[in-house]
Amino acid sequence: MMAESAAGSKRIVQGEIIHGGDLDAARVAFPGAPEPWVDLSTGINPWPYPLPPIPDEAWARLPGRAAETALREAAAACYGVPSPDRIAAAGGSQALIQILPRLRRPGTVAVLGPTYAEHAAGWAKAGHRVTGTESLDACDADVVVVVNPNNPDGRIVPPETLLALAERQAARGGWLLVDEAFAEVIPECSVASEAGRAGLVILRSFGKFFGLAGVRLGFLLGEPALVRDVRAAVGPWAVSGPALAVATAALSDSAWIAATRRRLADAAARFDARLMEAGVRVAGGTSLFRLIDDPQSAGLYNELGRAGVLVRRFDYRQRWLRLGLPVDNLAEDRVSTACGTFKNR
Amino acid sequence: MMAESAAGSKRIVQGEIIHGGDLDAARVAFPGAPEPWVDLSTGINPWPYPLPPIPDEAWARLPGRAAETALREAAAACYGVPSPDRIAAAGGSQALIQILPRLRRPGTVAVLGPTYAEHAAGWAKAGHRVTGTESLDACDADVVVVVNPNNPDGRIVPPETLLALAERQAARGGWLLVDEAFAEVIPECSVASEAGRAGLVILRSFGKFFGLAGVRLGFLLGEPALVRDVRAAVGPWAVSGPALAVATAALSDSAWIAATRRRLADAAARFDARLMEAGVRVAGGTSLFRLIDDPQSAGLYNELGRAGVLVRRFDYRQRWLRLGLPVDNLAEDRVSTACGTFKNR
Repeated sequence: MMAESAAGSKRIVQGEIIHGGDLDAARVAFPGAPEPWVDLSTGINPWPYPLPPIPDEAWARLPGRAAETALREAAAACYGVPSPDRIAAAGGSQALIQILPRLRRPGTVAVLGPTYAEHAAGWAKAGHRVTGTESLDACDADVVVVVNPNNPDGRIVPPETLLALAERQAARGGWLLVDEAFAEVIPECSVASEAGRAGLVILRSFGKFFGLAGVRLGFLLGEPALVRDVRAAVGPWAVSGPALAVATAALSDSAWIAATRRRLADAAARFDARLMEAGVRVAGGTSLFRLIDDPQSAGLYNELGRAGVLVRRFDYRQRWLRLGLPVDNLAEDRVSTACGTFKNR
Repeated sequence: MMAESAAGSKRIVQGEIIHGGDLDAARVAFPGAPEPWVDLSTGINPWPYPLPPIPDEAWARLPGRAAETALREAAAACYGVPSPDRIAAAGGSQALIQILPRLRRPGTVAVLGPTYAEHAAGWAKAGHRVTGTESLDACDADVVVVVNPNNPDGRIVPPETLLALAERQAARGGWLLVDEAFAEVIPECSVASEAGRAGLVILRSFGKFFGLAGVRLGFLLGEPALVRDVRAAVGPWAVSGPALAVATAALSDSAWIAATRRRLADAAARFDARLMEAGVRVAGGTSLFRLIDDPQSAGLYNELGRAGVLVRRFDYRQRWLRLGLPVDNLAEDRVSTACGTFKNR
């Protein structure tokens, strides 16, 4: 796994970490593909939270302290965090991934992988010594990073394991950083209710579960002293007025949240069944994305591309493809037809 | 001026830099004031750019590269920058003020002051030795910071002085950082067309002139290598989808921009006349804000507060009050009546 981290660090220096969502590049790679494309390359809920009315002054004025406090209160209630003073908001959890490595003296970092590449890259760039690890058991590092549930394979580390590890990290003055970007769909795996414990640092993403990734909003949950440092590092007015208005409403809408958890779970189960019918086996994921593990993934990627379906591939594991949920039957049909054609060839 | 910088550094450590726009605090300080308040405490155009339609996918999807490129092209055209590869976008020019001090080894920084306090605070926090200066002549520092036109007094440093200084700074491996947050209303003072020159670093703010401060968008203009460093530091998807949609339209609307320059200039001249009639002298500013220099400013601040008018005061110069433009006659009347009452008491 050392190779993966090293590759990660190399990539960020060149500014070339691959992410999903780049339809422009896909259009160039598959010029004959039918429009509009079906973009399954990200793990974002395809049924967004309906936008509430946004007051004119959310656009016009500098975001006020009261609005930011209301947002953190809504986030605390939604995530089960004991107090809003254990929450810092920023313009995306990616912004927090950029900031955290600079808040510690350079040391050793172990990233449970393979996972979202920006973690290893961010710590390496700030001068930390990053290694990848496939097991937490023998992890010996100042900072341990766990994406939970993991992206892209959906592997879950149980909360009790994480809390024991956080205690161990705290004892050495270290951190356990848990990225819960996809935890809304598996709330029982979250340790957010323990935010504030020494050594435990948690990231949450607003845009994925609420289907509003363009809004740019993420949260850090942790000890109040770290929260203060992070708020100072992001600076004033880090979250836009429209983001404050939309997210405060969305995070407070427990009926929508519960219904969406069910909807995503049902859709993921249905999608798995369609893929299996087409001869493609789902090996893991969450109900925001599914992971295919197939020796023919490279060919399948191209077949899907020619059919105007963009999925996420991984340079470090070519058997893998990650697929977000199709928004409707038409999109689902296009995916399953392409998979079936490829598998029956 | 050393005292001011020292105070600045002290303030950020305590997280207490005073900014305009905090109506909540004003309501507590002046509980009997009439509602709604007239907020003149920021230098933001009170007549915002009319929001264009924002496509659903700007909210839902991760902002794509094409949209970010289109924004930088629009900004380059609007600011007269030779090429978009000399522009980095971030979620507010404040976000860039947070980042820049970390992109240089700690050294000496001279801030032409008094000015926007976040500059000195940001450099000091990152370990640089910051001094304030009232003149650029004898400035000897690795980084020289000039807000141009200056906030709050409107002082302008001519472009030729800035370009000569940038050359001097480049020769020592340093920077001249020019914050052009209010330059839209005085385009002839801008050095944006010289962006890319060695040693010259420029900040532009979207929200002030376009009256959309809640959107959170700012730009750095500079050498392509620095632009790449800044883009790596802000990370991917730093600008929200709605900000990309709104700002690309606004920055391209040259008719609105020209009309708004005239409208602001007319409004500022009219406001000055009203203030003078009320016995209050305007000492400087730009057409986005006016500066009052008056020995009785403390009393005037309270009189305005009791009348439900929030203006900006300055702990480092108690004779000063800064006033944004009133949005309509009603607001203008409230200000001028309070000023007249106070001055005729």
